[in-house]
Amino acid sequence: MSGRHDTAAGIARVYRGSFVHSTRDAALEILNDFVLGVDKSGKITFIEEGKNVDRLAQEQGFNTADVENLGPGEFFMPGMVDTHIHASQYTYMGTALDLPLLQWLNTYTFPVESRYRDLKFARDVYTKVVKRTLRNGTTTACYFATIHTDASLLLGQIADDLGQRALVGKVCMDINPMVPQYKELLDESKDETLRWVLQYPRVKPVVTPRFAVSCSSSLLDALGEIARSSGLHIQSHISENKEEVELVKQLFPDCLSYTDVYLKHGLLTDKTVMAHGCHLTDEELKIFHKNGASISHCPSSNISLMSGILNVRNVQKHKVKLGLGTDVAGGYSASILDAVRRAIDTSKVLTIEHPQLRPLTFEEVFWLATLGGSEGMASYNPSEGNLPPNHFRYVLFHSS
Amino acid sequence: MSGRHDTAAGIARVYRGSFVHSTRDAALEILNDFVLGVDKSGKITFIEEGKNVDRLAQEQGFNTADVENLGPGEFFMPGMVDTHIHASQYTYMGTALDLPLLQWLNTYTFPVESRYRDLKFARDVYTKVVKRTLRNGTTTACYFATIHTDASLLLGQIADDLGQRALVGKVCMDINPMVPQYKELLDESKDETLRWVLQYPRVKPVVTPRFAVSCSSSLLDALGEIARSSGLHIQSHISENKEEVELVKQLFPDCLSYTDVYLKHGLLTDKTVMAHGCHLTDEELKIFHKNGASISHCPSSNISLMSGILNVRNVQKHKVKLGLGTDVAGGYSASILDAVRRAIDTSKVLTIEHPQLRPLTFEEVFWLATLGGSEGMASYNPSEGNLPPNHFRYVLFHSS
Ligand SMILES: [Zn+2]
Ligand SMILES: [Zn+2]
Repeated sequence: MSGRHDTAAGIARVYRGSFVHSTRDAALEILNDFVLGVDKSGKITFIEEGKNVDRLAQEQGFNTADVENLGPGEFFMPGMVDTHIHASQYTYMGTALDLPLLQWLNTYTFPVESRYRDLKFARDVYTKVVKRTLRNGTTTACYFATIHTDASLLLGQIADDLGQRALVGKVCMDINPMVPQYKELLDESKDETLRWVLQYPRVKPVVTPRFAVSCSSSLLDALGEIARSSGLHIQSHISENKEEVELVKQLFPDCLSYTDVYLKHGLLTDKTVMAHGCHLTDEELKIFHKNGASISHCPSSNISLMSGILNVRNVQKHKVKLGLGTDVAGGYSASILDAVRRAIDTSKVLTIEHPQLRPLTFEEVFWLATLGGSEGMASYNPSEGNLPPNHFRYVLFHSS
Repeated sequence: MSGRHDTAAGIARVYRGSFVHSTRDAALEILNDFVLGVDKSGKITFIEEGKNVDRLAQEQGFNTADVENLGPGEFFMPGMVDTHIHASQYTYMGTALDLPLLQWLNTYTFPVESRYRDLKFARDVYTKVVKRTLRNGTTTACYFATIHTDASLLLGQIADDLGQRALVGKVCMDINPMVPQYKELLDESKDETLRWVLQYPRVKPVVTPRFAVSCSSSLLDALGEIARSSGLHIQSHISENKEEVELVKQLFPDCLSYTDVYLKHGLLTDKTVMAHGCHLTDEELKIFHKNGASISHCPSSNISLMSGILNVRNVQKHKVKLGLGTDVAGGYSASILDAVRRAIDTSKVLTIEHPQLRPLTFEEVFWLATLGGSEGMASYNPSEGNLPPNHFRYVLFHSS
């Protein structure tokens, strides 16, 4: 949200009512009876107390009769940020949650994802996902698509057409022993990723190795190089469940930790969003902090797949960038509001086990869902003293 | 659901489509393309495969043109049973979940409950609760009201008027050191409970000592006697959190356990529904089984108030009657479908901690929400080999 007064700009809409948001100082701030003006491009030009409406009308050149007053139960809040969601898994959301991660991938996920070579199928599902998440208040999303470049480009197109800000990732994976029909050759994965160049105003490509288990060291190297030379964002999964962590140790015996795998391949930067991190050690969190990489906390998925529970307080202690993710379809809901509830629940479950651990408050999790996610997807490194860009998009909520 | 064919009865409505329900043999049964007939009193008179519709029309005397076909995404399922809900706490549902049980009661609950001496306030809130829970698919509920007899009678009246089957409890408590304006004198509590006689077709009174902490031994004795002599149901809370369990030990030094407190006072019968039971020992579960008492599992509340997590597998192992409860407002949702999700979540949290513990399946929790709850509220003792009465009420669901 920009607070600058742009008297020259033509004011397109003026709203008066309650605004609820996060700031760097307050996890939750409630502004009752404020007026907000938006220019023709949808940019916020002012937000001030309602009592100043007459002066503002003069300064900004709008008619007080045109002010739109919010109704009872209505308020504006920042659009929410989903820092980790598999658009391609939307088809089976809410089902198939009876297996742990690796078995779940082989049994349910890979067979479904292999269907996205069919662009008609992809268009149908991706349109539903973007519409649904927008309706749920997600104005910014960090998407995993599938290995299919054209279908992934289509997802970016759809998000842009429908007005959602998004990072969209063509998934890269050249290893898949259990479901061999759903993987790429090393060169193919590299070449297709290079073809993966989107230039829409709101949508950007994000380099997306599925996770260390599905990618050869050569592919990880190539993706790290593409991300570096193109200045792109990166997303992947890390330390979701214990079996996976063990497997990565075996697959990358020369690396010191799971985090070290991504670090060594140039994939842990201040533009990296890593999902889960349930089992990261303090040592690994320090590396996250140092490199400005962020974690996407996906509590619904972590419970449903019985992966583990992220200790958010410990992540905060290490000053690692942190947002919330739905992780559809490991998570059964495409709503970040559901992720908010589950983040509180899992923190309380940890408190039941460790009574000295203070549970997260509503306010703190509201922050994670909005400003936290926005910072998590922004390219800046807090360990170097940088500040994140602060850009909100407001959405109107009706509570009943 | 009664399967008997009542050819004499006039068929009022005939539905054709999908029916989803629980049986004693199957946690979840899906009947695709079935026809179901209902007589003028709303009683199910037949349910058979759709291909028999012509024969049924002749036998039962209806016109096939009058059959109502369910639309896409529509199906019938049993109305759900909420075995534990505080109607009086509906006003602050979804808020005030930052304290553990005993502090939560003193800070939020007792002050709100004391307002129900005002019948206008009571009518307003109770109407909302019954409408909301009916809309959520709860056709049967086991309600806690407050200590106010007239307001509690009103809740019964409202549930009956709106067509909800309910047990309604005037809360009894003669001890409340922290919020002394919200309690009764011993004789008052007895006398008011005796006045508490409802005789509506769907609504019945239930003897309701709040919990052992709020009731003197004399009051518990009196309530046990009232329940026995009137053949009434009983509800209360047990072993919700550890602090409470310790307190009960101190308050009733002559009792062997929390369960023993209720047993000794005649309050643990085959008509008893006890909420929570998170910290019950195996010894106590055996006493529950032997006496035919049931547990209301309220997972949302247990997480929100950080009370503990019920090990449902262990309850099942001890063959204790078990249903689901929302426990509004310790639970933030008045929907049993939410309790279904949370029951799966908490069982998976236990599996994360104890990988050998098999998590609950969708099907098993569907059973708890419907047939389990119905059995939990029925007066029968499985340890004596009795079978529960089997009465469902179907509700129409639209999935989208
Ligand atoms: Zn994921
Ligand atoms: Zn309760």
